Amino acid sequence: MTGDPRGGEGGPPIEGLSVESREPVYAGEVVDLSVVRYRRPDGLVVRREVIAHPGAVVMVPVEQGHVLMVRQPREAVGEYLLELPAGKLDVPGEPPLECARRELAEEVGRAAGTWQDWGGFFTAPAILEEYIHCFLATDLVPVDHAPIAEEAIEVVPWPLADLDRLIGLVHDAKSLIGLLRLRHREDSGSR
Amino acid sequence: MTGDPRGGEGGPPIEGLSVESREPVYAGEVVDLSVVRYRRPDGLVVRREVIAHPGAVVMVPVEQGHVLMVRQPREAVGEYLLELPAGKLDVPGEPPLECARRELAEEVGRAAGTWQDWGGFFTAPAILEEYIHCFLATDLVPVDHAPIAEEAIEVVPWPLADLDRLIGLVHDAKSLIGLLRLRHREDSGSR
Repeated sequence: MTGDPRGGEGGPPIEGLSVESREPVYAGEVVDLSVVRYRRPDGLVVRREVIAHPGAVVMVPVEQGHVLMVRQPREAVGEYLLELPAGKLDVPGEPPLECARRELAEEVGRAAGTWQDWGGFFTAPAILEEYIHCFLATDLVPVDHAPIAEEAIEVVPWPLADLDRLIGLVHDAKSLIGLLRLRHREDSGSR
Repeated sequence: MTGDPRGGEGGPPIEGLSVESREPVYAGEVVDLSVVRYRRPDGLVVRREVIAHPGAVVMVPVEQGHVLMVRQPREAVGEYLLELPAGKLDVPGEPPLECARRELAEEVGRAAGTWQDWGGFFTAPAILEEYIHCFLATDLVPVDHAPIAEEAIEVVPWPLADLDRLIGLVHDAKSLIGLLRLRHREDSGSR
């Protein structure tokens, strides 16, 4: 990985792991795939197909008793998915929180007065470097935004009173994590 | 996608979505990557880099006040990660629950008397077809198992009394979803 996009949040590093070889096999617009051979501390060489990724952010925006979801077509899985707003860390050097501010404006047209860092996670650590930082965004105000044409994103405000039903409808990992954390916050009454 | 590995659990299908072209660009041992051009119902053609995947299972095994975690090296992200036991649906036609039984025996050496289906999710729906089915596994008994050498998996039983700390340490999306669901079950007292 380049630098440490996770801010030291991950698990313990594999001490003594070394890269024997790295063979780039495809460099696409989104997917950058290499075959990497690692030598483990015990000497065993393992082969991994690894997709490079700059990391991403996911936001849990809460406004007037609603969480602001987005619905968009996901062609790769053939479905419209209800998701939390999210975006890739595609501006080099941009801190995750700055990316979250930018994406919240672009996707749902809001700025947040209060941000809370809810930690992060790898989406598919066997093959994908992607690490997603999760933020709670509250004290929202509308901002001007120019939606990106191809993204075809529809904003869906969902009542918190009906959060359990939403959790049953959402089938996107990053969004489920944000919503399950939100449910715990609601359960705990820590507004 | 081939068939419907999700058992109809996903979001509404994108009606009228058609595949204009599909160009295989890499067929690896794990990653099978194509560039697909889809025509949306409105006529817009979008290009997607899509990784085929047969789907997977993740299990939340609970035994004597502990959840059975596994720790394993994840070379692609350079860390040892604490995860729930999981596995790929790599036996054609195998139902997710059968796969879960097999993987639970292989990874933690247990059979479960009671299984509860906790639904599923896409790990990275922008690029990856993978859909993971999540199961709660209780009433566990030990079974013989032969661990797979390369997997280097260590079983880590974690006390439920310390579940919040575990949730803070886990940085793997599928495992966080299982553990956040488990916390809600514990909170609700529905044993």
